[in-house]
Amino acid sequence: SLAHRCHQRSTAMLDVPFLPFCAFLGTLGLLCVAMVGTWCQHWRGGFSLDGSSRTFNWHPVLMVMGLVVLYGAAALIYRIPHTWSGPKLPWKVLHSSLALGAFVLTVLGLAAVFSFHNSQGTPNMYSLHSWMGLGTVLLFSCQWAAGFGAFLLPWAPAWLRALYKPIHVFFGSTILMLSVASCVSGINEKLFFSLKNGTMQYKLLPAEAVFANTLGLLIIIFGVLVVAALARPSWKRPDSDSPDSHQVRDVLGG
Amino acid sequence: SLAHRCHQRSTAMLDVPFLPFCAFLGTLGLLCVAMVGTWCQHWRGGFSLDGSSRTFNWHPVLMVMGLVVLYGAAALIYRIPHTWSGPKLPWKVLHSSLALGAFVLTVLGLAAVFSFHNSQGTPNMYSLHSWMGLGTVLLFSCQWAAGFGAFLLPWAPAWLRALYKPIHVFFGSTILMLSVASCVSGINEKLFFSLKNGTMQYKLLPAEAVFANTLGLLIIIFGVLVVAALARPSWKRPDSDSPDSHQVRDVLGG
Repeated sequence: SLAHRCHQRSTAMLDVPFLPFCAFLGTLGLLCVAMVGTWCQHWRGGFSLDGSSRTFNWHPVLMVMGLVVLYGAAALIYRIPHTWSGPKLPWKVLHSSLALGAFVLTVLGLAAVFSFHNSQGTPNMYSLHSWMGLGTVLLFSCQWAAGFGAFLLPWAPAWLRALYKPIHVFFGSTILMLSVASCVSGINEKLFFSLKNGTMQYKLLPAEAVFANTLGLLIIIFGVLVVAALARPSWKRPDSDSPDSHQVRDVLGG
Repeated sequence: SLAHRCHQRSTAMLDVPFLPFCAFLGTLGLLCVAMVGTWCQHWRGGFSLDGSSRTFNWHPVLMVMGLVVLYGAAALIYRIPHTWSGPKLPWKVLHSSLALGAFVLTVLGLAAVFSFHNSQGTPNMYSLHSWMGLGTVLLFSCQWAAGFGAFLLPWAPAWLRALYKPIHVFFGSTILMLSVASCVSGINEKLFFSLKNGTMQYKLLPAEAVFANTLGLLIIIFGVLVVAALARPSWKRPDSDSPDSHQVRDVLGG
């Protein structure tokens, strides 16, 4: 039909190859990590474990590394065409390992800000940023545990996996968006805290403010591009749940 | 096959009817609007047009009404099963009118904060919140104009509509997420500005802080639920582009 041909034609016009797109995403992710590190090193006094604001500085760096960039890499594993043939289990292990690595960095990132607050006598968990951020981390831990239980342990029945899979996929993108939103509110609040005096006020847009605002925008663009890549139908792994379930049972069950 | 039966069974278990879900979403959206209004009225001095912080107060109210709640309603129009049969044009007009209404409220919301800044001598557009928020509004204006040009005007060829439709759908959800993230950073920053003294400091979590933090979480939940509803395959309008294109041509072109 005409509609069908039109659709094919238009789909072909939008065909970006996945791997170059991924290379671009990886570069953008590394740029975000480099920029948050540079911000803390160059303008915020660097890093230490003494409970000062130099301890706090681990917080943004670990959060961007863990809950944005490494999380994004973990989420994209099944979009690599190479993973579509052959056994799925190694890719599942890689996906859950990268996500676990992201989770560990995230927990260290939380430890940094709690330890800074505690040593300064500042209360924890009062700002909307902290409520949203901790909510995001809690959702992430549920997501990891449920994914592990449903897709890696051999006991989950096929109907439960089929039921849970779209939920896992949806929350995969949602948690990344929440995480990006937490980064934005955190960078915004940190700049209001830090840039208060004289010619360095945030509202006068000193170099640090332009740099960190740009970092915030790049984090948003990274998050949106990862979610776009996840949503793209032609980049999704062709569905084949049953053989895969058997295979996991075979390997883990004996 | 077994996999197919499993999938049917699991899909049936998740079957929430759309209209009760929408009624819940509508209630949640109205609650968000009522709460942002209550926050500004009860704790922030109410509303006026005199360039004071009472002028600023229109900003959060109009943004939540426009770029979150009314925008969400506009986005969900095609998910109403009632719209799937019969001519699509009236629903397109409703979709674009609600989106236009959301855009007008948004522009008034921007006018409120610019007028507040200008009358106070505060610079505009320095915070990450403002960069992200204005970026979101600009994306929204592109989205509206491109949607109008591609789907309502009669001249766009079928292949262009087919090419643009998934992009329009993707940015529909993305703009809502960016808008929610802008609200969160804005509420967070407003609470740091406003709650500074004595027992009313943000970090001591006075009633206003708990109230506005809760508002932030409800806005996030509203946004995530709208995006989830948009993403749900069984709630999507069955695709039939061609007859619809003809119908628009017939109506507008003659």
